[in-house]
Amino acid sequence: MTSRQLTPTAPNRVPTLSEIFRPVSRKLSLVDRALRSWPGSSSQVVRRLAGGTISRRGKLIRPGMLLLITGHLGYRDGLDIPLAAAVEGIHQASLIHDDIIDRSDFRRGEQTALQRFGPDYSLLLGDFFFIRSVASSLSMRDREIPRLLAEAARLMIEGEMEELAASYNFNISRAGYLKIIEKKTASLFQTTCRLAGRLGRAGKKEMKVLEEYGLNLGLAFQVTDDLLDLVGQPSRTGKPVFSDLKEGRVTLPLILALKKADSVGRLKLTALLEKIKNDPDKQLWPELLSQLRDTGAFEQTFRQAASFTAKARSAAMRLRPSLYRQSLLQLADFVLWREQ
Amino acid sequence: MTSRQLTPTAPNRVPTLSEIFRPVSRKLSLVDRALRSWPGSSSQVVRRLAGGTISRRGKLIRPGMLLLITGHLGYRDGLDIPLAAAVEGIHQASLIHDDIIDRSDFRRGEQTALQRFGPDYSLLLGDFFFIRSVASSLSMRDREIPRLLAEAARLMIEGEMEELAASYNFNISRAGYLKIIEKKTASLFQTTCRLAGRLGRAGKKEMKVLEEYGLNLGLAFQVTDDLLDLVGQPSRTGKPVFSDLKEGRVTLPLILALKKADSVGRLKLTALLEKIKNDPDKQLWPELLSQLRDTGAFEQTFRQAASFTAKARSAAMRLRPSLYRQSLLQLADFVLWREQ
Repeated sequence: MTSRQLTPTAPNRVPTLSEIFRPVSRKLSLVDRALRSWPGSSSQVVRRLAGGTISRRGKLIRPGMLLLITGHLGYRDGLDIPLAAAVEGIHQASLIHDDIIDRSDFRRGEQTALQRFGPDYSLLLGDFFFIRSVASSLSMRDREIPRLLAEAARLMIEGEMEELAASYNFNISRAGYLKIIEKKTASLFQTTCRLAGRLGRAGKKEMKVLEEYGLNLGLAFQVTDDLLDLVGQPSRTGKPVFSDLKEGRVTLPLILALKKADSVGRLKLTALLEKIKNDPDKQLWPELLSQLRDTGAFEQTFRQAASFTAKARSAAMRLRPSLYRQSLLQLADFVLWREQ
Repeated sequence: MTSRQLTPTAPNRVPTLSEIFRPVSRKLSLVDRALRSWPGSSSQVVRRLAGGTISRRGKLIRPGMLLLITGHLGYRDGLDIPLAAAVEGIHQASLIHDDIIDRSDFRRGEQTALQRFGPDYSLLLGDFFFIRSVASSLSMRDREIPRLLAEAARLMIEGEMEELAASYNFNISRAGYLKIIEKKTASLFQTTCRLAGRLGRAGKKEMKVLEEYGLNLGLAFQVTDDLLDLVGQPSRTGKPVFSDLKEGRVTLPLILALKKADSVGRLKLTALLEKIKNDPDKQLWPELLSQLRDTGAFEQTFRQAASFTAKARSAAMRLRPSLYRQSLLQLADFVLWREQ
């Protein structure tokens, strides 16, 4: 496994997103404003719902990444702002619908649309964001842009369907898991980079580099997300959340633990997982955490994420040096070392 | 009220949809095939879900209407088939999501996606159809086409939000109700006609006629739908379904009954409606039905629908005579007199 070759050492200080996105901070606030203006002349109920949904604490990673790339490519026409909003809109739509599926009342400390408006409004609100996102890209001269955006949305939805179909499947392989997260998460990251490359007229070689950056950053993002669900920050012992397994999602730490355990350990772990599946409210989580820890699955999962961010960094290094490239490199560090 | 001037008399025999769509029956089966091919190379779960969703009993009114218009206009390029599929896809997406909101297990005697696959898969399946519909229009040369389609989808979603916001609002006016159903239902009918007109290079005057036809047919369709929910076929006494009021939807028959009743009648009716609102399972429906019947609201609602179909017919009459125009006229009759 290539990730074994890596012994990632934490940077002295993990850069914050506001540091990383400083070169595009003005544009990023215009993206936020564009998103908030979407309900436009719609009726009051739409303005109230949509306006209250765009989170003030959203990380805006995808729009920020898009703007860093168009900045790097010297793009000056301003269409990167509505396009970044469209990408974020697709992401928001999927968050709103995911929260319905997962029955999540809170996300990043804020009430979800589900909690604020209930499932019916949230369902329609997600639809609104999906359609509005694709619609806002239709006026772009490059006809490939809405096509790429719709394709990324489709892959994301398919990935989520496949994830549902794999619920509580403790036999899922690492490859099966990676295929799902590539569709569900990494495809939108990759498409974001591709879109930025098209706007900024990246050359063929540059485009390949950007796509590789986006794909690997997206994979790393999902792997660290899955790890954070279990242990908070991977380098420390965080408080367990376990929302993934509660929803039946079998993520990489579990898959690796089942793979690494000897036959007795695997039987024990499987029995525990089945117990949790049948009674997720029972307090079996500390035991699971300790069993997982014993197998070294957390470290291995972290190394997998580090292997993806290393690939993303190495792709970015093939771009010419620039202030923006520096931020793209820092973004890879952030994705790996982030605590939330 | 213009509808009062009308005394609609039933045609000797209401034409069936298969008679109406006979001139485009071959193309209509290609639309059905196109829809079924959408999951394409997607993973198995998507193929299974999407493949099992396109109803074999779907009326295909919107695609049929589109093909009648392109037929009338002498359009020969074959893009009307994927476009008709896209329109139907938007409609199917909204049905799937509506059934989640309404918790409907059956539609037209068939199990809904909700009933077959549960709410989580159904949510994603609706998303899939929305995105896939817009995506399939992106390859058309006329860039206005995906824009119109996305705009119709947006209006539909907004109309549904407004409808939710008006739940159990017994003070809603006829104008407020008509505004909602125009967005929620008639906009997609109107857009379907506009799209057909664009494909078939309709002149400016012809386009206006087509839009008027679609708008009024869509309004009539929703009014008869609301009436059928209460009385089955408007000319006879059907069995009550009342699914609208159970979900809080205050439709035209109710609005007109509240308006027509004297002050004592209104108090009595409002009290009954409040009782039903608080306990929809209680057997108060026969009483409601009889109160509504006494006000003449059903007849008045039917006359409203008839007024819309009369406008649709009169618009169609301004097209040059053709086999297809004949079907468009029959379609208006069908929408008014249909029993389901």
